[in-house]
Amino acid sequence: MAARRAPIVGRHTAEEVALAARNRGMPLEALRYEVTPAGLHYLLIHFDIPDAGGWRLEVAGRVENRFSIGLEELKALPATTLRVTLECAGNGRAQMSPRYPSVPWLEEGVSTAEWTGVRLAELLARARLREGVRDIAFRGADRGFDAGIEHDFARSLTPAQALAEDVLLAYGMNGAPLPPQHGAPLRLVVPRWYGMASVKWLRSIEALGQPFDGLQQARSYHFRSVPGEQGTPCTLMRVNSLMVPPGIPDFYSRSRVLDAGPVEIVGRAWSGAAPVREVALGVDGEWRQAALDAPASPYAWIGWRATWRAAEGAHALACRATDASGATQPLEPPWDLSGFGNNAVQRVQVNVRPDDALFG
Amino acid sequence: MAARRAPIVGRHTAEEVALAARNRGMPLEALRYEVTPAGLHYLLIHFDIPDAGGWRLEVAGRVENRFSIGLEELKALPATTLRVTLECAGNGRAQMSPRYPSVPWLEEGVSTAEWTGVRLAELLARARLREGVRDIAFRGADRGFDAGIEHDFARSLTPAQALAEDVLLAYGMNGAPLPPQHGAPLRLVVPRWYGMASVKWLRSIEALGQPFDGLQQARSYHFRSVPGEQGTPCTLMRVNSLMVPPGIPDFYSRSRVLDAGPVEIVGRAWSGAAPVREVALGVDGEWRQAALDAPASPYAWIGWRATWRAAEGAHALACRATDASGATQPLEPPWDLSGFGNNAVQRVQVNVRPDDALFG
Repeated sequence: MAARRAPIVGRHTAEEVALAARNRGMPLEALRYEVTPAGLHYLLIHFDIPDAGGWRLEVAGRVENRFSIGLEELKALPATTLRVTLECAGNGRAQMSPRYPSVPWLEEGVSTAEWTGVRLAELLARARLREGVRDIAFRGADRGFDAGIEHDFARSLTPAQALAEDVLLAYGMNGAPLPPQHGAPLRLVVPRWYGMASVKWLRSIEALGQPFDGLQQARSYHFRSVPGEQGTPCTLMRVNSLMVPPGIPDFYSRSRVLDAGPVEIVGRAWSGAAPVREVALGVDGEWRQAALDAPASPYAWIGWRATWRAAEGAHALACRATDASGATQPLEPPWDLSGFGNNAVQRVQVNVRPDDALFG
Repeated sequence: MAARRAPIVGRHTAEEVALAARNRGMPLEALRYEVTPAGLHYLLIHFDIPDAGGWRLEVAGRVENRFSIGLEELKALPATTLRVTLECAGNGRAQMSPRYPSVPWLEEGVSTAEWTGVRLAELLARARLREGVRDIAFRGADRGFDAGIEHDFARSLTPAQALAEDVLLAYGMNGAPLPPQHGAPLRLVVPRWYGMASVKWLRSIEALGQPFDGLQQARSYHFRSVPGEQGTPCTLMRVNSLMVPPGIPDFYSRSRVLDAGPVEIVGRAWSGAAPVREVALGVDGEWRQAALDAPASPYAWIGWRATWRAAEGAHALACRATDASGATQPLEPPWDLSGFGNNAVQRVQVNVRPDDALFG
């Protein structure tokens, strides 16, 4: 087994900063949009954005009908559009200490888009899975090294997961062609799951008679407490929520200043396991129930809002969602060796100034 | 004068990482695109992306004809599309030591777009500048604190700079409406200048009888060697160039592996002061001339390419552009207190493996 990277404590390495610079979080004020506008959706690109020249999708392995298919043929099949929230499994990693050397997400690795494409089940029906298929592997065109192992980014789903009616092969995003950085010409979109399942630059689908042992499936993206354990795979997104930080920021510290008076705090909440049932807004440790918007999609975040009468002084805001399974966000990050699944409540510090400060 | 932030040596602060996560570099493989696709263009957002509701542009100050104008009226005026390369003045800051506490750009704060809008000169002709206009101030709708001072982001140009025929008020980007994060509904685009001049979310243009003393004009964005000096304003982009790092990356370290044999190294070069005259590719300290593509726009980067016969082992690649003014990129970062204007040559380390490694 190739060496793991050693955990980091304290300030950030040049490698973490390089990953933060080339990957992209969603600025939290963009939570105001129910569908994240093009170019504001978060991005995690493991290797380089590959060139899409000469692309066809191969469907192969343990199937009755192997075939390849081009983009125009795919677009001629019945199209479906789904509004889906995706979150990086490593979102919140940089709040942990020690932390795993990877993209240092604070909390901005989540977004929602409208994905258009063909249901995966439709293509699998054309391929006709043979008996004894254990896993279906999805391979991207993006290639590189991780943990010393050269590979194309690849993930798998079981046949039952793959045949769920909501799994898409998407060629469109927010009504436009899929952009290069989001997987053009075709990507998988697996609603309710953390983002790693939604393989970008998809070039092959292979039905396997044995469990898929690719690095990103069998070793990466597992919850682990200690090095060396097999761990538990990351699958559905844990219940989580964020707010638009109120007021105006300081450029460098991002600390917030707000005028005293009533302010509507708005945000969004999501869970892969079950619908969001409740969101609470915390002010200085006291929790009050927020109002939920009407859900727009079973696969997308839900808006919430609460009015707060901001009084002069320093205040600590937080938000905390609970889903219909009863799962609720923890107050502190749950420990994970690789920094996966941190759904601890967001905390926003604000300084409220007298409401006559504008005239001062 | 409000306190400056103290310089940083060594690893990166949480504030730097938060800025890297919410701002966006262009992944270097996107240098393959002559026009950066939507969503891949770099972003530097000082405060929060403001809401564009109820927007009109005010034209005021020392003019004969003060007026406000809405977006539809602007779109009815003669439209111009220019292909323009923009680079953040702080690009390359994170290569310096000590470095100024701000966005820790390594080298990815540059991109090219096709901007569509109305020439600023057209609106200024309608306003009719009065005698004695010293500066024209451009104010954005983005508000926050920097150096302890609350302000809307604002910059100025002299009348001569503002009346140059290539300065645009842009409402379109790459053939689509300007996205929120790039300044919707309207932004200034000042070709050849570092990006801070191209004010986003533009809400007012004011002709002033005295020099504009806004923080972002009079204090920020100056080249300074030592604290306290007035310094020299950042204006035109210095000559610079980048290459697409060849081969495939390691996820965390971004180190590159390449197969032995001939490889075409491609990249782009730009300068605000004069056309790029020459680009050299450096291999292990030896420089060879690269071929330049035909220029597509006087305001945009120019493509370059050079073939390298990669031999097994570790190699150091670099690229270095020279413009028609005779300016050439330095081999080491030029010192600047705030990390502005670092146009030192890019260096890419690659490990070349035998070309039979694929079969090994």
